[in-house]
Parts: sequence; structure tokens; C-alpha cells
Amino acid sequence: MERKSFGHMACPIARSLERVGEWWSMLILRDAFAGFTRFDEFQTNLGIAPNMLTRRLSALVEAGLLERHRYSERPPRYEYRLTPRGRDFQPVLVAMLAYGNRHFAPEGASVQIVNAATGAVADPVLVDRNTGRPLAEPEYAVVPGPAASHTLRQRFRSRHGAGLLARDHDLQVPARAEAPTRAS
Amino acid sequence: MERKSFGHMACPIARSLERVGEWWSMLILRDAFAGFTRFDEFQTNLGIAPNMLTRRLSALVEAGLLERHRYSERPPRYEYRLTPRGRDFQPVLVAMLAYGNRHFAPEGASVQIVNAATGAVADPVLVDRNTGRPLAEPEYAVVPGPAASHTLRQRFRSRHGAGLLARDHDLQVPARAEAPTRAS
Repeated sequence: MERKSFGHMACPIARSLERVGEWWSMLILRDAFAGFTRFDEFQTNLGIAPNMLTRRLSALVEAGLLERHRYSERPPRYEYRLTPRGRDFQPVLVAMLAYGNRHFAPEGASVQIVNAATGAVADPVLVDRNTGRPLAEPEYAVVPGPAASHTLRQRFRSRHGAGLLARDHDLQVPARAEAPTRAS
Repeated sequence: MERKSFGHMACPIARSLERVGEWWSMLILRDAFAGFTRFDEFQTNLGIAPNMLTRRLSALVEAGLLERHRYSERPPRYEYRLTPRGRDFQPVLVAMLAYGNRHFAPEGASVQIVNAATGAVADPVLVDRNTGRPLAEPEYAVVPGPAASHTLRQRFRSRHGAGLLARDHDLQVPARAEAPTRAS
């Protein structure tokens, strides 16, 4: 299947999707988080064609999200385990789970995240660890980073702004932090 | 292109991916968040083939993430705007952005999320809005929800557990919340 690569794009979303954006890949990762490791387990759970599963597992190994271990010498058998990079993908899947429950589960949640001590259903929200505040406009904005190209910086200065969270206004972030002054 | 649907699966991750998991779809949403609305803008930004873009936009409209508005009568021209359901997808993209920056930006971040008031780079973390605590094991677990089928409940009782965050242990969540008692 011919498919345009996102790998050359500077955008970190595109680069992530280059590794995990193929059909099936995120469901394989989901099952890896659930503790499944073996080819036949993934195949049974997902109902995926073996040649497709082989390609997807190889791509996830290649991208450094899964590691392949031989668990049987005769016959040779392999299992696939999440690497630290694979485990770090968890927030994306959790955000996707919460989204699916909110929008595509008219009959109610089939799976949900709960506080293990109290059983209370969690309400996932993405915050800034430094401040505890939700990552939402206008308090937060997407801006060019240190490695941004000239073109990307220009694009951010254009009418639309550019990048997630930005909308129809230019992103203006002060070069230096100015603490709010308070009359004392 | 023949492609197996995830739509019949109970898993909320699978149901989300059914709507946004096609190659290109999440980058179209990313650009919609950046304020782009028009067919030719998406096409120019992404370098996507027009027939492919038409299919992806239609699917996102069908799924309720984008709305199509006519902005010109002669010639007829349409723009695509995020619906509330589309806007609610933002945490998934932000989590994906943070992941890409951590793992696939060896030259440094090209785009990043900052606190608009201070300019400080944000450190995105997914927490439970009710407690402010990170959604991570062992404090949080994925368990069957009210709409879980018998089969799904059985699967959760199996060796692996099942579902995100669960690993090689059974998930045991108390049926009733027990508030911690405190000597007074």
C-alpha cells in the first residue's frame, strides 16, 4: 500500500503518528498495556490477519515501542513487550479512552478508569504538572520551539496562527515572564 | 481500500479510532485546531491528494467532529469547522504532541505548549480532575463499566486482566467506596 510518510514533518504530532498512526497499531499497544505479549494473543483478540499483524509488530519494534524476546527455542517463539517508550504512550490511549466513552458509548461505558482505592470513576484531564492547571486556551498556547524552522516561525506569525490550541489570532507570548504586580 | 472496522468493538479506544484513526484524519484535526477551515488550506498544508482529503473530511463530518458550512454561493465553496465533539478531541492531540517531543524530536522541540502568561514550557500530565492525582497504576485501574458485556467481564477476570493500565494481575476494585477513617 502506497502511503505518504509523515516522518519528514517537523510537527511532533505527525512524528508520533508516523510510528503509531497505522490502522491497528494503537489497538496492539492497548493490548500490550493489558498484559498481552504473544503473537497469537494479539491475533485472537483483534481478529487481525497474520501478515498484517507481523507488519504492525515489526513497525512498533522498529519505532522502539515494543521489544521482541524469544521465549521458546524449539520451536522459535517470540513475545513482544512494551519498552519505556511504549509505556510512555499511555496518556494518549487514556485520553482516547475517555474521549470514546464521552462520545461513542451511547449505551454507557464498557470500560472505565477508576480510583483503585475508592472505586470512583476518574475524570481525566490534561494539566501542566508545574501549575496543576488544565492545558487550555487562553492560559496555554502552542508556540514555536527552539528547533522551529524559519518557515514554521513565519507560519505562526500568519493570520491563522498555527499549531494546536491556536485559533484565529496570532499567538503572542511574552519573551520574558512578567510576574503580576500587586499593590502592597 | 478494504479495511476492517473497529466500530462493532465495545472498547472506547477502538470506537474513537474508528472515527479518527485513518491516516491523515488526526493531522486534519490538528490543522482545524490551528484555525484552518478550507479545503485548499488543508490540501496545501498537508500535501494530501484531493480525493483522499474529500474522503477524510466527509468521514469527520459524518462522525460529528467537523461541520460543513457554505461560505460562497457562486461558486459553491465550503469550510469545515470543529464541532464541540471535535474540540473535545484536543487532549488526545496534546498528549500526542508531548509524546512526539519527548521521543521523536532529537533536534529539540519545533512546537511546544507554554503558559501564555509566563512563557514557561508546560509539562503535560493526565490527572483525575476529582483528585488531581496522575492517572497511573496502582492508584488507578481500568475496570469493566456499567455497559460491559458478560464476555468482557470474564476477560477482566482472566490471567491478564484486560484494558489499559492493567497488567499481569487481576483488577480488584472494591464494590463500595470506603472513606479512610481518621482518629479524631
